[in-house]
Amino acid sequence: MSTDTPIPTLADIETAHARIADYVHRTPVYHSELLDRHTGGELHFKCENLQKVGAFKARGASNAVLGLDDAQAAAGVATHSSGNHGAALAMAAGRRGIPAHIVMPENAPSVKKAAVAAYGATIIECESTLVAREEALASVLAETGAHAVPPYDDPRIVAGQGTVALELLQQVAELDLVVVPVGGGGLLAGVALAVKSINPEIEVMAVEPAGADDAFRSFGLGERVEQTAPNTIADGLRASLGVLNFAMIQRYVDTIVTVDDSTIVEAMKLQWSRLKTVTEPSGAVSYAGALEHPERFRGRRAGVVITGGNLDLDNLPW
Amino acid sequence: MSTDTPIPTLADIETAHARIADYVHRTPVYHSELLDRHTGGELHFKCENLQKVGAFKARGASNAVLGLDDAQAAAGVATHSSGNHGAALAMAAGRRGIPAHIVMPENAPSVKKAAVAAYGATIIECESTLVAREEALASVLAETGAHAVPPYDDPRIVAGQGTVALELLQQVAELDLVVVPVGGGGLLAGVALAVKSINPEIEVMAVEPAGADDAFRSFGLGERVEQTAPNTIADGLRASLGVLNFAMIQRYVDTIVTVDDSTIVEAMKLQWSRLKTVTEPSGAVSYAGALEHPERFRGRRAGVVITGGNLDLDNLPW
Repeated sequence: MSTDTPIPTLADIETAHARIADYVHRTPVYHSELLDRHTGGELHFKCENLQKVGAFKARGASNAVLGLDDAQAAAGVATHSSGNHGAALAMAAGRRGIPAHIVMPENAPSVKKAAVAAYGATIIECESTLVAREEALASVLAETGAHAVPPYDDPRIVAGQGTVALELLQQVAELDLVVVPVGGGGLLAGVALAVKSINPEIEVMAVEPAGADDAFRSFGLGERVEQTAPNTIADGLRASLGVLNFAMIQRYVDTIVTVDDSTIVEAMKLQWSRLKTVTEPSGAVSYAGALEHPERFRGRRAGVVITGGNLDLDNLPW
Repeated sequence: MSTDTPIPTLADIETAHARIADYVHRTPVYHSELLDRHTGGELHFKCENLQKVGAFKARGASNAVLGLDDAQAAAGVATHSSGNHGAALAMAAGRRGIPAHIVMPENAPSVKKAAVAAYGATIIECESTLVAREEALASVLAETGAHAVPPYDDPRIVAGQGTVALELLQQVAELDLVVVPVGGGGLLAGVALAVKSINPEIEVMAVEPAGADDAFRSFGLGERVEQTAPNTIADGLRASLGVLNFAMIQRYVDTIVTVDDSTIVEAMKLQWSRLKTVTEPSGAVSYAGALEHPERFRGRRAGVVITGGNLDLDNLPW
């Protein structure tokens, strides 16, 4: 993705929302008075863990798959993914009836591999480095002629993920801020574009694990730095920020804060025990931001995106 | 409770539903195509784990508390409970602004004790036998003049729990059967009354842990037997069937099946991983019935009540 890629617009997000309506859920928003008491803010949780494939990734992948013309679609789609994007692309391709080839790191959680396989996709395993993944994907593309759908740094993906914000702003009136996690930045870019296009007075806050804080550092430095050696339990947020996404984040995001892994675990346990909803570590990162930075939430009404709920119940992080 | 207690009617359940509307949630119904594939039936999960206090018990307790006149209410309410009924009574009393005294066994899960305390109730600890609980409650009643609200064998409680079925039948059209767990039988009696009063052709099926199967045995024998030495992880279902409730169950229930604890754990893990919703062991028992007796569900549309989601995340049963 080069810096010359045209930045998507609100119209692209609205088009995506109409296009994917039959492929994804309009997820509910949960609220708990007890959790509000913890932070002193009013927190409305957009439950993308209840989305198809258990994560917001269903939105972007569906938008990309449905945007292909029949000739492009015939050869199928391919990607590399640590999990949820792979499952999402497999689901969308399965629904459209076209092949999907998913390159996955050997150490991806078994539950995520099983989900991809269940949608009928072909899994190609590789080492977990970015270089190994990209090489494996290049081989697959050369062999199959499939169309590449990247996990985050792509305007179709960004527009699809931005549909989360369209719904959230319809579901909760008079939000003061919207809070999302940041890894590769596709969700953050899309949500920030949507929120600022609809109401520039709403703050857009990103939350990032302290052990994979390239977005935080890039945002402060004003130039994109790569994430090397990420160290966080939030396995969905270890990637480096995308190039297109960084350009959008510089334009539309107000704040990035970081959180420790211990706070992420605390956030998961509170969401499980109080909201009775299962969140994966990456999915609880936005709420961890409220727990670690309560002063930024006090007296304010926040939309907090729970991004996913896929994890191995036999290997919980506590 | 004597066998002369008048059996509640559908009108009592409808009155309860209107009375408690501001105290409880109209809980959502979840559905998963993937879980349907497991059993070959269409399963619609009524999510009382998302109810106030995390369990359907909020309904009956609210109905009892709101049915007291001001003079009765002034001295407060009291009960003995292994957990969810205690939290529910504490919540309802707190909302009405009257005292609550909750007798709890020493070995009740810590999360349940904490919930009761958080609603401002007074906790009185005792041994976990029924005799010890009843003695402790008698002392509390003598000392405080509080009004006793039993956990299940009471027409006000039965009418309140029956409101689950009123909502379920509004939320899902053309049900073939409704499935609930049975312990003390308050939920089962209320739901069976409501279902059979509205549409006698809908089957009412109860599911009971094999290690606490007094309802199954009583139903077969045609006379009520006590549960001695229950042995099941479903801590909310260890009590003996109530006297009033047995009379109603004989009249309105079609089927009782039993399930092993291993199936209850399997049901929990599937609900957590696929529905992303946290269920306690007792809360997963109805779905365990579908897993262990799939032939009773094949090709049919079932309303399956998830009764609660309160458990200690640091002591999971797997």
